[in-house]
Amino acid sequence: MNQRLTGVMNWLVEKQIDLAFVQTKANVFYLSEFYTEPHERLVGVVIFPTSEPILICPNMEKPQAKAAGWEYEIISYSDSEDPWYMLKQRLIKEVPSIKKLAVEQEHISYTRAKALTNIYPEAELVSVEEKLYSLRLVKDDKELAILRQAAQLADYGVEVGVSAIKSGRTEMDILALIEYELKRKGIREMSFSTMVLTGPKSADPHGSPGLTEIQRGDFVLFDLGVVLDGYCSDITRTVAFQEVSEKQRDIYNTVLGAQRQALAVCKTGTRIGDIDLAARKFISEAGYGDFFPHRIGHGLGIEVHEFPSMSENNNDLLKEGAVFTVEPGIYVPTVGGVRIEDDIVITKDGFESLTSYPKELIIV
Amino acid sequence: MNQRLTGVMNWLVEKQIDLAFVQTKANVFYLSEFYTEPHERLVGVVIFPTSEPILICPNMEKPQAKAAGWEYEIISYSDSEDPWYMLKQRLIKEVPSIKKLAVEQEHISYTRAKALTNIYPEAELVSVEEKLYSLRLVKDDKELAILRQAAQLADYGVEVGVSAIKSGRTEMDILALIEYELKRKGIREMSFSTMVLTGPKSADPHGSPGLTEIQRGDFVLFDLGVVLDGYCSDITRTVAFQEVSEKQRDIYNTVLGAQRQALAVCKTGTRIGDIDLAARKFISEAGYGDFFPHRIGHGLGIEVHEFPSMSENNNDLLKEGAVFTVEPGIYVPTVGGVRIEDDIVITKDGFESLTSYPKELIIV
Repeated sequence: MNQRLTGVMNWLVEKQIDLAFVQTKANVFYLSEFYTEPHERLVGVVIFPTSEPILICPNMEKPQAKAAGWEYEIISYSDSEDPWYMLKQRLIKEVPSIKKLAVEQEHISYTRAKALTNIYPEAELVSVEEKLYSLRLVKDDKELAILRQAAQLADYGVEVGVSAIKSGRTEMDILALIEYELKRKGIREMSFSTMVLTGPKSADPHGSPGLTEIQRGDFVLFDLGVVLDGYCSDITRTVAFQEVSEKQRDIYNTVLGAQRQALAVCKTGTRIGDIDLAARKFISEAGYGDFFPHRIGHGLGIEVHEFPSMSENNNDLLKEGAVFTVEPGIYVPTVGGVRIEDDIVITKDGFESLTSYPKELIIV
Repeated sequence: MNQRLTGVMNWLVEKQIDLAFVQTKANVFYLSEFYTEPHERLVGVVIFPTSEPILICPNMEKPQAKAAGWEYEIISYSDSEDPWYMLKQRLIKEVPSIKKLAVEQEHISYTRAKALTNIYPEAELVSVEEKLYSLRLVKDDKELAILRQAAQLADYGVEVGVSAIKSGRTEMDILALIEYELKRKGIREMSFSTMVLTGPKSADPHGSPGLTEIQRGDFVLFDLGVVLDGYCSDITRTVAFQEVSEKQRDIYNTVLGAQRQALAVCKTGTRIGDIDLAARKFISEAGYGDFFPHRIGHGLGIEVHEFPSMSENNNDLLKEGAVFTVEPGIYVPTVGGVRIEDDIVITKDGFESLTSYPKELIIV
């Protein structure tokens, strides 16, 4: 059995929880390697403390689940059958009554939680999410190999974007070219809505790419990533068009320096909040403290924003195998914004940057 | 007050429900015209039977909400405040205790439902979704104007795709070109993951576009749509590359005939299931009954799949202003698949097709 399933099983034993029911796309994929978007249809994994897990999915998805490597029981249903009834029959045969049932409390719908309570009226619902997030936090070699490739494709996206900068082109022209080249390489899905922001818009956290043409002296901020084999990348680079003012250069170099400070503490055992504080201190000392309004980063993996949140008050310690972004930024209204973001994995000896597009100021 | 809010308020009065809490992106947008993707942060609309509604959102989103036209009270919170505590203080001032609370049962998370139950421990949670879906089903003129434009952009996407078909090109090459041209026009988001499927893959409902080159005699199936100002379009066209067999021509013309049969009954008062049956009967009589495995269509609007489900067992009657897809298909393994899909609005006198790309068989 894979370590992910046994990780949950051991936790159930330890916490004396009778079973876990997992039904978000990301967690089903993590536990079963079955990547599916069932929309309103039920797909879920039932995990017991000591017996084999069960997958439930629509009939038409059963071959995909097996092809993905699921070797255990599958309950499958047609559109005219009631999956909850079938699940109930199977579950009460396995365990007639239970006391504690772990679910994704933050994500399971009220209707589904009620359906589970209908199967086990006496069960107390507890959270399985914290455990799953802590398992997902440490990436294995297979995951790292995919994340590395996804990051290289993000580098390539920035490369295409920088080459596409020309007088007369709009943010959407450049964005369209980036996604065009990535899609031709087989990428079906970006990990979030691609950002190309120019000039003063680069300073607006609510900015969205539009049809205004790039101007001399603009910052051009790229924030993009791809989904590859179920894993996400996320890179930000900022370049300038034709010329920069001294102020812009100062902002850029402050962000770059802040990222260096943050990366310098990226190693096992570091308190996560200290990464944020290292960058924040550098930016504050340079006089831009009011213009760095967000946390230093976020965990990265199956979801583009996942556990942990890399904010200053996070007291957890970095572990080997953790993958996250380091992305300080300074946003000065009317002047423009700069953000530099890399995807990082914590290694035995420090860290490895998965993204590698150059970071010195480029003036196109 | 807008008719959407008064529609919910009147329903609350009629059903003797004390308040409704709405928190999905689509329904918040429908009620407030505030289009936002708050991720895990709380954005919601509280509707009372007779007093003015309240919006809750993060501080940084408040200006956008007002700009979108929200004229009523806004409770806004910073990342260090607890929005549920603030909501509780405000709500119990308005109504100290309630009996019935309407929520989006299919979509609200267990955690959020618990947070509401914490505010009103004695409240029974009932569903607000059916009412919202039935309101959203009938589109007003403003919505229709946007849907018409979104459909024209979908037509344009197919036009680009058909022009892009050439020896040596892959599905992903063609897909990349379609999205490139749409993005250059300012489209940020497709309404779902664009499909370009060639040859035998066009017959696979699980097919996903890849890097194999198009071959002589292939069907090329396009299924795509855009999001414009919060509304979706969705078109499917199938063309052939260089030549077709008699079998392929027969399949194509059967699908086209089936769509004509389905469209012929699209008018106010028709039982929705009869649209599906009109197409299904035509396809069965042509001998392809086993190869039309899906319903005739789905409602279309803020979401690409919304109420109503256009399946044979739907006994509801068509209303003026309903917008939905009509998309029969025949999928013959190894030969290929054909689907023809239009976006339709029911008018006083019949229907109007919002999409208008030609439907006679095109051999590129």
